[in-house]
Amino acid sequence: MTLEAIRYRSGSLQILNQLLLPHKTAYDEIRSVQDAYEAIKSMKVRGAPAIAIVGCLSLAVELRAGAGGDDPVTFIRESLCHLTSARPTAVNMGRAARELMEFAENESMEKNSEQLRESVIAWIEDMLERDVNDNKKIGNYGAQHILSGVPRDSVTILTHCNTGSLATAGYGTALGVVRSLHALSRLKRVYCTETRPYNQGSRLTAYEAVAEGIPATLITDSMAALTMREMNITAVVVGADRVVANGDTANKVGTYQLAIAAKHHGIPFYVAAPSTSCDLSLESGRDIVIEVRPPEELTSINGIPIAAPGIEVWNPAFDVTPHQLITGGIITELGVFLPSELQAALTGRLTAL
Amino acid sequence: MTLEAIRYRSGSLQILNQLLLPHKTAYDEIRSVQDAYEAIKSMKVRGAPAIAIVGCLSLAVELRAGAGGDDPVTFIRESLCHLTSARPTAVNMGRAARELMEFAENESMEKNSEQLRESVIAWIEDMLERDVNDNKKIGNYGAQHILSGVPRDSVTILTHCNTGSLATAGYGTALGVVRSLHALSRLKRVYCTETRPYNQGSRLTAYEAVAEGIPATLITDSMAALTMREMNITAVVVGADRVVANGDTANKVGTYQLAIAAKHHGIPFYVAAPSTSCDLSLESGRDIVIEVRPPEELTSINGIPIAAPGIEVWNPAFDVTPHQLITGGIITELGVFLPSELQAALTGRLTAL
Repeated sequence: MTLEAIRYRSGSLQILNQLLLPHKTAYDEIRSVQDAYEAIKSMKVRGAPAIAIVGCLSLAVELRAGAGGDDPVTFIRESLCHLTSARPTAVNMGRAARELMEFAENESMEKNSEQLRESVIAWIEDMLERDVNDNKKIGNYGAQHILSGVPRDSVTILTHCNTGSLATAGYGTALGVVRSLHALSRLKRVYCTETRPYNQGSRLTAYEAVAEGIPATLITDSMAALTMREMNITAVVVGADRVVANGDTANKVGTYQLAIAAKHHGIPFYVAAPSTSCDLSLESGRDIVIEVRPPEELTSINGIPIAAPGIEVWNPAFDVTPHQLITGGIITELGVFLPSELQAALTGRLTAL
Repeated sequence: MTLEAIRYRSGSLQILNQLLLPHKTAYDEIRSVQDAYEAIKSMKVRGAPAIAIVGCLSLAVELRAGAGGDDPVTFIRESLCHLTSARPTAVNMGRAARELMEFAENESMEKNSEQLRESVIAWIEDMLERDVNDNKKIGNYGAQHILSGVPRDSVTILTHCNTGSLATAGYGTALGVVRSLHALSRLKRVYCTETRPYNQGSRLTAYEAVAEGIPATLITDSMAALTMREMNITAVVVGADRVVANGDTANKVGTYQLAIAAKHHGIPFYVAAPSTSCDLSLESGRDIVIEVRPPEELTSINGIPIAAPGIEVWNPAFDVTPHQLITGGIITELGVFLPSELQAALTGRLTAL
């Protein structure tokens, strides 16, 4: 079984409501850009690539219904601006918005409103397809790179958060690498951190692993270093919300700590991300805005309090892993690159290793 | 307000049921050794020193009621053996059992059953008082050592799990150091990890901090490295379930990972533990038995499932931090020692620094 997190056909969009997983599998209808904004903000959908795709598809749904009337460009601009503001750290929505806006403005030179709507919808539908294909390439490149160090053995992977079908248009980035290793019958086991405070690991990655029969073991975030020491971990593979020019990577909080522990144990640390998650406009990770989320994510679960009343809380959603700690490489749909090679690779000055 | 986790008067013992904290403050009557065994096993009481004290006090309660009849030594031996088996990693219960047994056997040479019961009860009551006094010494030694590096500034501490009044006979070990810094008006803030899977940080340490007005911020375990980088942490201070001869330390799972992150950031890492938590009979941490607890501690909270059904789980309760990572020192009631000095210090060949 492959999970279907995004159900789209022309004019209609449904998303698997991830807040209800793993207990309930329910799809929510997304009828408008505002519906998508709220779904992203409330984390019914999360994961940098999925956020961009759901955002853009919601725009396609509205355009199909004729939104924007005689001035679709203004409607498209305002919609994309609103969608980009829902969560600040991931780059994908911002990048998609810029590219789509540029495309729409060019098209508007020579097309009428109706033709413009059609071509923008086609652009968005193409983006959905491209994302799944890119993920499969990431999975294969990553699996080959990891296996190149262990010619015959099965490998054990440690991963963080959820980067699978639920975080992307399908297949996944870091979990796509795990899927590819499993498909090659070379995956011994994947250890998934539960990923507090939102439990994307225990709720979502575990759900995907159980659903597809991938051998997986859940640990708390605090057990990762011990797991590295005791469980013969071949590589740590995580996703990214944003990779900047020097290779510094913003990802789910806890990633930085995992990278430090991997370095301590001499275990290669990989970031798996499509080139659309790379943001060469920022020089280093110091420039990345980190979203701080509400205290309630730590102090309650499903509305039930789990912490002492009155305690102060700090809840940054992401952290930045410096490129020096990304020792395995950055796995993209173009190949696997060292952080120092990323910029050249993405601008076409270096080809896949 | 100071928390009273253990209420004892001759013949009567009540413990604060920590499973109900922070939502409900309820005391459970401990009428027998078996009651104490069950309270320890189910974690109504936890923390290595508190386990030993509650275990021994339950024996005192039974002895006060005349348990053991004409052969109290056999009753004491069997009771201590049972209590020691409740949780294997902490050393304190085992040590108290050995010392108390030796004392009881010596006393039995020259005393009748009634006199023996009285002297064993007195020994146990003295142990309770000694533990609180030792903790206050640990608090003061630790605070002075940390402050010696920062002559005038206030300090920011990061701690893990619960090592306060709730984990000891009173005051606490690592949290005792935090209490002492606060009493000296030199504590800027303490960051407490929530300490998955049992949430001793968010439930218990946060509860103690709020109750006593100690400035405290709760973070997830995965945010510790980021907190070290961003929040100007002066020192990391944790407790210990067992410190062995070379200084290797078993403590709540996640401690090892914190020590690696502290080393990476050049932040001194301290272990605070009474000498009763030190076990010189073991050469190195490799010899420590690590308790693996049930999967349900990760997959549910208060009986409510929070993980995908069917996922496998690894749930080690402790990990071992190698002495090389304990860069600040080991804080005992005798002084603060480097791991390499511990053995000499505890055997009287080295005095407090």
